[in-house]
Amino acid sequence: MSAITDTPSRASEEALPPVPLTLEGASVLHQMLLVRRAAWRALPAREQGEIAEEAASAVARMERNGAGQSAVFSMLGHKADLMLLHFRQDFAELNAVELELSSLRLWDYLEPAHSYISVVELGLYESSARTYAQLAARGLTPFSDEWNAGVNEVLTRQREAMKPRLWPEMPAHRYVCFYPMDRKRGEAKNWYSLPMAERQRQMHEHGMVGRRYAGAVKQIISGSIGLDDWEWGVTLFADDPVLFKRLIYEMRFDEVSAVYALFGSFFVGLRCPADELPRLLQGQTPRFGE
Amino acid sequence: MSAITDTPSRASEEALPPVPLTLEGASVLHQMLLVRRAAWRALPAREQGEIAEEAASAVARMERNGAGQSAVFSMLGHKADLMLLHFRQDFAELNAVELELSSLRLWDYLEPAHSYISVVELGLYESSARTYAQLAARGLTPFSDEWNAGVNEVLTRQREAMKPRLWPEMPAHRYVCFYPMDRKRGEAKNWYSLPMAERQRQMHEHGMVGRRYAGAVKQIISGSIGLDDWEWGVTLFADDPVLFKRLIYEMRFDEVSAVYALFGSFFVGLRCPADELPRLLQGQTPRFGE
Amino acid sequence: MSAITDTPSRASEEALPPVPLTLEGASVLHQMLLVRRAAWRALPAREQGEIAEEAASAVARMERNGAGQSAVFSMLGHKADLMLLHFRQDFAELNAVELELSSLRLWDYLEPAHSYISVVELGLYESSARTYAQLAARGLTPFSDEWNAGVNEVLTRQREAMKPRLWPEMPAHRYVCFYPMDRKRGEAKNWYSLPMAERQRQMHEHGMVGRRYAGAVKQIISGSIGLDDWEWGVTLFADDPVLFKRLIYEMRFDEVSAVYALFGSFFVGLRCPADELPRLLQGQTPRFGE
Amino acid sequence: MSAITDTPSRASEEALPPVPLTLEGASVLHQMLLVRRAAWRALPAREQGEIAEEAASAVARMERNGAGQSAVFSMLGHKADLMLLHFRQDFAELNAVELELSSLRLWDYLEPAHSYISVVELGLYESSARTYAQLAARGLTPFSDEWNAGVNEVLTRQREAMKPRLWPEMPAHRYVCFYPMDRKRGEAKNWYSLPMAERQRQMHEHGMVGRRYAGAVKQIISGSIGLDDWEWGVTLFADDPVLFKRLIYEMRFDEVSAVYALFGSFFVGLRCPADELPRLLQGQTPRFGE
Amino acid sequence: MSAITDTPSRASEEALPPVPLTLEGASVLHQMLLVRRAAWRALPAREQGEIAEEAASAVARMERNGAGQSAVFSMLGHKADLMLLHFRQDFAELNAVELELSSLRLWDYLEPAHSYISVVELGLYESSARTYAQLAARGLTPFSDEWNAGVNEVLTRQREAMKPRLWPEMPAHRYVCFYPMDRKRGEAKNWYSLPMAERQRQMHEHGMVGRRYAGAVKQIISGSIGLDDWEWGVTLFADDPVLFKRLIYEMRFDEVSAVYALFGSFFVGLRCPADELPRLLQGQTPRFGE
Repeated sequence: MSAITDTPSRASEEALPPVPLTLEGASVLHQMLLVRRAAWRALPAREQGEIAEEAASAVARMERNGAGQSAVFSMLGHKADLMLLHFRQDFAELNAVELELSSLRLWDYLEPAHSYISVVELGLYESSARTYAQLAARGLTPFSDEWNAGVNEVLTRQREAMKPRLWPEMPAHRYVCFYPMDRKRGEAKNWYSLPMAERQRQMHEHGMVGRRYAGAVKQIISGSIGLDDWEWGVTLFADDPVLFKRLIYEMRFDEVSAVYALFGSFFVGLRCPADELPRLLQGQTPRFGE
Repeated sequence: MSAITDTPSRASEEALPPVPLTLEGASVLHQMLLVRRAAWRALPAREQGEIAEEAASAVARMERNGAGQSAVFSMLGHKADLMLLHFRQDFAELNAVELELSSLRLWDYLEPAHSYISVVELGLYESSARTYAQLAARGLTPFSDEWNAGVNEVLTRQREAMKPRLWPEMPAHRYVCFYPMDRKRGEAKNWYSLPMAERQRQMHEHGMVGRRYAGAVKQIISGSIGLDDWEWGVTLFADDPVLFKRLIYEMRFDEVSAVYALFGSFFVGLRCPADELPRLLQGQTPRFGE
Repeated sequence: MSAITDTPSRASEEALPPVPLTLEGASVLHQMLLVRRAAWRALPAREQGEIAEEAASAVARMERNGAGQSAVFSMLGHKADLMLLHFRQDFAELNAVELELSSLRLWDYLEPAHSYISVVELGLYESSARTYAQLAARGLTPFSDEWNAGVNEVLTRQREAMKPRLWPEMPAHRYVCFYPMDRKRGEAKNWYSLPMAERQRQMHEHGMVGRRYAGAVKQIISGSIGLDDWEWGVTLFADDPVLFKRLIYEMRFDEVSAVYALFGSFFVGLRCPADELPRLLQGQTPRFGE
Repeated sequence: MSAITDTPSRASEEALPPVPLTLEGASVLHQMLLVRRAAWRALPAREQGEIAEEAASAVARMERNGAGQSAVFSMLGHKADLMLLHFRQDFAELNAVELELSSLRLWDYLEPAHSYISVVELGLYESSARTYAQLAARGLTPFSDEWNAGVNEVLTRQREAMKPRLWPEMPAHRYVCFYPMDRKRGEAKNWYSLPMAERQRQMHEHGMVGRRYAGAVKQIISGSIGLDDWEWGVTLFADDPVLFKRLIYEMRFDEVSAVYALFGSFFVGLRCPADELPRLLQGQTPRFGE
Repeated sequence: MSAITDTPSRASEEALPPVPLTLEGASVLHQMLLVRRAAWRALPAREQGEIAEEAASAVARMERNGAGQSAVFSMLGHKADLMLLHFRQDFAELNAVELELSSLRLWDYLEPAHSYISVVELGLYESSARTYAQLAARGLTPFSDEWNAGVNEVLTRQREAMKPRLWPEMPAHRYVCFYPMDRKRGEAKNWYSLPMAERQRQMHEHGMVGRRYAGAVKQIISGSIGLDDWEWGVTLFADDPVLFKRLIYEMRFDEVSAVYALFGSFFVGLRCPADELPRLLQGQTPRFGE
């Protein structure tokens, strides 16, 4: 098949699975919404006030929810006026959030424009390479019971160690940026046909860039293969939105991004704490951390 | 032509048809719907109740229909609020279901967002290879009367053996995932130009991954070439939706998926038994198997 | 230029035009429509009845029109509820049909969802090869007056012989399938850069598959280059819709389809004779030939 | 760089600009509109009559406008019911036309569906090659003042000679066809990377086909790079719409079209003289030249 | 990896970062809007007048805003009737502008059709090459503290020198043209895989064309990687819109445009000074500089 696939032979690592180990945490829903401004403006001020307070108090409860937080953002541009971001324990809870919100009176003045469904994900390229090699050294056949046990031991340990990243709190930065992405599966350049060691090398190089923004930009990666229309969602948080541009521009020269990254729509906005929601609905930019 | 097509010569198997034998079963319709929430909320509670009960009892009859079942799902995200899935004897019955549902009073509060038309399908790569070889060994010319008779004998036998898979019952899992897909016909990588033996090998490798999820994920493949805009529909059922992600991610490294699979939109939701429909319409996540 | 185009040299047939002779017949319009169900349902039964009868009698006249028939279909899925198919003498008549229909009261309850404009077409690959060779043998320069006269003689003779296929009656089958298609003009694979003899060979192979479905599937090809957004429209008729899937799947392995066919949306439905239209509008699947 | 671009070296003509000289004439606006039929039909006949007469008399003035004519067409299919085509002196006049039309009462019953903005354009491939060679022979550096003067002299002379084609009258044919197009900039096939002599050769071959339809099909090419979403608009006029199909099909085998042409949507319709507009709005196909 | 990437080895410049230094200035929002003409026309003249005056005076304040100006344009074609362009200090101010405008009564008669979010950007290809070389000559490792200090010194100096271009005033030309664009990341042609020196060379060649239009066409480049759906926005201003076509056509033959530029939608319009807005809303083309 090598003449057909144009990719380097996998022969040397044939015994090892090509799939990196992956940990999953919180179920995530991004909801992008438009405000029906003419209908909203047509309401008497008192009714606007009541509706806004009802929504603000529902959002406030969700902001403080110990088992998975929510946040509201005031978005820039015509693609969305509001974005709600929800971290929850599972998909049934996400469904419950959607249904609860759609029962608010405010929902008569909103229109769903977009959404994204995913699960917080950590890809363990380095652990995977090490683990697969160790299990192979023990002579175990991939996917045999013993091999599975060895893998599960690693996953369990890592899941515990990574808990804060798998079940994140809402980052305390003023600006948000969300976009979905794929890895390219072109006719000549195909991420999924690369040997795992090569993918690991490129992901490592990619991580080096991110590290230069540590502290200034907080990044949450969530997986959506089989759940939504792109393979991953990326949610970034920062106090200066120009950092989104700098970080992503700089990464675009990494081999994994330059050659293999495909991007969907970008959504950018400002955090709107629950108690600022009534002011936002009156046409005021939400204050944050003042 | 080989210089033009860039694919391995078909000379060696020229006498054999390149098309695998295929069995068809139930006619399938997926209907994705949005709820017109503002109009629905504007109704008095009693009227909501009556409309919901009328719909629930129509769906209940369809759930129990011996000659082809239906099910309702509460979907995640903005692409759909509800999905109805129907298995029926033929396309005239699917048309009757559509017309019957659209006569319900609830339909004034729903909006079609998407749909998919297909037929449950089993591709018999291994039988095909064996059968074509045997018929060739008997010296029969493909598509001659005798050859057709030989093929039909195999199809008849398999159709009987595969009955439960061709005419499936609605799987009893809480979560559903639906997506349509194509096999790539690129300028350099073209599934339909590969020799049948190579396609058979890749499909076999692909099936090996699926087998690791047996029991946990139930999969129904339906063919839609000539019926809808993609070549196949895939409907998965599981009690843990993260398995959708794991299964499809793992498969993405198979050659047949990595190189030749193109995916449409993904739809994910929770089963809503008919008697939970009124609660769902009141904004409650449907209970299942509790 | 051969280094640039990557295609086999056209030198050997340089004297011959690369364009196959083509015959045109009936002008064709496909109209796909959605029913505004909530508005329709809101009408009193008597008014529904009057409106349905007015529409049924207009369609009945069109079904019987000797100079070009029409037919109505009840479609599956969300893309269309109804499809009207019209064969007419010319485009002014198609425009008249559109305007006449849009004057019916029923049109207040319909919404155009899609349409397709084309002309019934027969591509004469085999005649073209023969004719071009004969005219070249007579030493005639392509597009000279004498050459044109020779070509027109062939076209006139064929146009007479092919009359029933160029000006078709509405086929008497229960199911319809419509889709538009293009021939690929990729960077490496380009139908329009192939030598005519190679195109002729591939079209012949393609026709062999179609012949296996003769009687069971009736096919009308119409050309739409310069008229609508794809190059051809294909309308299939059969009593078993699964044949649409089998025929098109089988053809997908032909070189001309595997490599060079690009497909638009597929529309599938059931014939609704004019006198069944009122029942259809009441939510009943139309009867056919019972 | 040759290893990277895969195109023939430009070294031999490096001294010459690759851009052909181009003349611009009338500013052009195509407006495609849908009729809101239900709202229109709901009007009393007398009001319909008044509104139609007001629109017809505005269009009549535009048809007779000496400094740039307009025309109305009754379109086929769901993409548009009406098309208005305007030739004007400049973009401010086009803006004035848009604003004037949108002030008509009829505009309450129309909905913009599409539009196209361009400038009548003549590409002077043959003059360019000759002029650039002559100026080079005089030892002039491209874009020096003397060189610019030489080029402007040619442009001025040609602009005068081509006046009737740059500032066209509305052609007197019954049918219209409009489509936008691009020249391909693919990874291997890139029109803009070809040497000018090669582009000139292909454009010449292309023109030869068009010449065979002279008299029967009138063609107006307008440039839209920097003005609208495609590079050129093509508007064809003929008394037999099947000629649109034949001409464009025949051209598709030219190298410049087969390899380098990308097409947008096609719009086809019948001329509706201003005094036929009221009949069209009553549902009658417009008469033309009868 | 060289066999896989098909691009020239980066080995020779491996020590240098591939990312050019970039300066950012004003935050930019383009808002494209449609006018709901039927609703607007239905208003009594006096109410129209009041609403138009309220909007005109809000826009007039924004036109004169010292810390970042706004402008209104009357657009051609169906994609937008109005475009508002805003330069501001940061994204919170852009959000405030959006919210302020959406509180105007006029907003009940407008519909957001499109928008674009970006930051004025200057790419310093020549400084970057020089700076990276100098820092390397000093033996500094990229991204070390000393190296960062050296880079920041250059950025600070350039930011001061470029102030008028980073924080632009609204150019005083009658016509505007806006479009977004990407650099291609194809399988064979990938801008982000080119060596920086090659990108610098192509950008230099590209700049040479622009220089020939200096004075006649004013260009503002803004970066939108991580902020909106394309990588850059380009806003051009001129007194003759045909110059947009000529400039962009001429540039299309540059290597960087011919091979690596991908374009989004083009928007073209006429400046409407705030005090002309009421006339525009009455259907008059706005006067400019008369």
